[in-house]
Amino acid sequence: MSTQQIAFLKAHGTGNDFVVIDAVSNSIDLHPVQVAHLCARHTGIGADGLLRVAKASEFGITDANYFMDYRNADGSLAETCGNGLRVFARYLVEHQLESPGEFTIGTRAGTVKAFVDPHDTEFKNIAITMGMPGRSLIDATPIVTTEISNWPGAAVFMPNPHCVTVVDDVHGVGSLLEAPHIAPTEIFPDGANVEFIEGIDEVHIKMRTFERGVGETLACGSGACAAAYVWAVRNNLPADWTVQVDVVGGTLFVDSVDEGTLVLRGPAEFVSSGYLIGEQWQIS
Amino acid sequence: MSTQQIAFLKAHGTGNDFVVIDAVSNSIDLHPVQVAHLCARHTGIGADGLLRVAKASEFGITDANYFMDYRNADGSLAETCGNGLRVFARYLVEHQLESPGEFTIGTRAGTVKAFVDPHDTEFKNIAITMGMPGRSLIDATPIVTTEISNWPGAAVFMPNPHCVTVVDDVHGVGSLLEAPHIAPTEIFPDGANVEFIEGIDEVHIKMRTFERGVGETLACGSGACAAAYVWAVRNNLPADWTVQVDVVGGTLFVDSVDEGTLVLRGPAEFVSSGYLIGEQWQIS
Repeated sequence: MSTQQIAFLKAHGTGNDFVVIDAVSNSIDLHPVQVAHLCARHTGIGADGLLRVAKASEFGITDANYFMDYRNADGSLAETCGNGLRVFARYLVEHQLESPGEFTIGTRAGTVKAFVDPHDTEFKNIAITMGMPGRSLIDATPIVTTEISNWPGAAVFMPNPHCVTVVDDVHGVGSLLEAPHIAPTEIFPDGANVEFIEGIDEVHIKMRTFERGVGETLACGSGACAAAYVWAVRNNLPADWTVQVDVVGGTLFVDSVDEGTLVLRGPAEFVSSGYLIGEQWQIS
Repeated sequence: MSTQQIAFLKAHGTGNDFVVIDAVSNSIDLHPVQVAHLCARHTGIGADGLLRVAKASEFGITDANYFMDYRNADGSLAETCGNGLRVFARYLVEHQLESPGEFTIGTRAGTVKAFVDPHDTEFKNIAITMGMPGRSLIDATPIVTTEISNWPGAAVFMPNPHCVTVVDDVHGVGSLLEAPHIAPTEIFPDGANVEFIEGIDEVHIKMRTFERGVGETLACGSGACAAAYVWAVRNNLPADWTVQVDVVGGTLFVDSVDEGTLVLRGPAEFVSSGYLIGEQWQIS
């Protein structure tokens, strides 16, 4: 066995799960085919995506120390991921690469602020700044249709596209085995994630998400932000609101701060750590 | 952190994947809820099932040294698993609990013979004795129906129930997102796995499996045996035949030896090993 032993961590944020690979203490690069193998559910470690922990300088970034090199499960590059950023922030703190408190993380979508409360020793409430929500330039209400019924939605860009749909009962919208249809299609030329939300009270909602190209997922961080924003507008919440979002995989909180910047808060859980076995994982 | 560190191994046999937990060097027991957590794809390690490596004496068995305490992913007990037995046999040899060559393994379905060739250092060809196929006592041909068409099948018990269905093209039978319908239902009072097989030549088939209660899977060891048996009978193969079965997750071989006992051969691959993190995995 001439293989270098590759260390990994498996972690999740409200059920959105990741393989974390350290490329700081050594210079591991990952080919898309290797990422796909690592994320394969039955023959690899299995995950929704891979977080490569890299030095920000590797990406020419100067306003952060580390860069979340996020890859989709199929090996393709991705810009960023709200639930992945909480896992990434915990990793940096637990590995003493950053101190608890506020620090920055580089991503392909720009540098974001993370806050890990020094008293939050179980990492239940990691905060990530997600930016301001954007609305569609097209003046039309998207109509979302499932096999059960149809509902008006609201287009919100975080900046990825979301169609937030308020319903009476998130379990009454159907199986979500197939993508909900959205019309007119001009509102979302690249498609959209659909968030079905149900109000519990003015500052608390339940949510189910259908992610484009994936299917129903246990959690979507940017979707939680879009959903909380729609709920806050609908209820005329005063500035600096907080909305609790119960997703299938756990509980998230969204805060609006500084005149409309959204902050996503929630847990990051580490599941296991170890080494890959065998020559098939040879990583350059 | 007062938690005992729990070691695990993740492995698979032609895409059928398992968490392996050592209960030999320490006396770990596993509650069904813990098994379900460990096998959960997004929040645990993720697997089709869990193999607890136990001393046979713990189960009152005297004709084997070790017992494969197999659990389904939902935490329930299972009798045995052909692909799991190859992984289990490799584990025993690699951990020097058994020597390469022939040895026995206890299971809830009885003691089975395993053979690990001392020259097979990559564990590509582990052999497990699977027993003799049984036929239905009901004299009727099961008819298998999918959304595409219907075909006559053959009932084979290994001893778990299989409905082997010869078709022209295994990719032409439909999506298998829903269970194929089998009639008359009296042939399989507890339901059956459905194997669609396509002949490559007299001793070589392709197979897709729909496992009852699960869906389409990458491999089914007992299903490969049932399918090879049907193909051998159909082609009047002489005694002591071997049939190659290409499953979605790899390649298996089935040998008929000693007047009809079936032996399943194929690879066992180790993916990763490590430790569980956090208090939620506390195991008694």
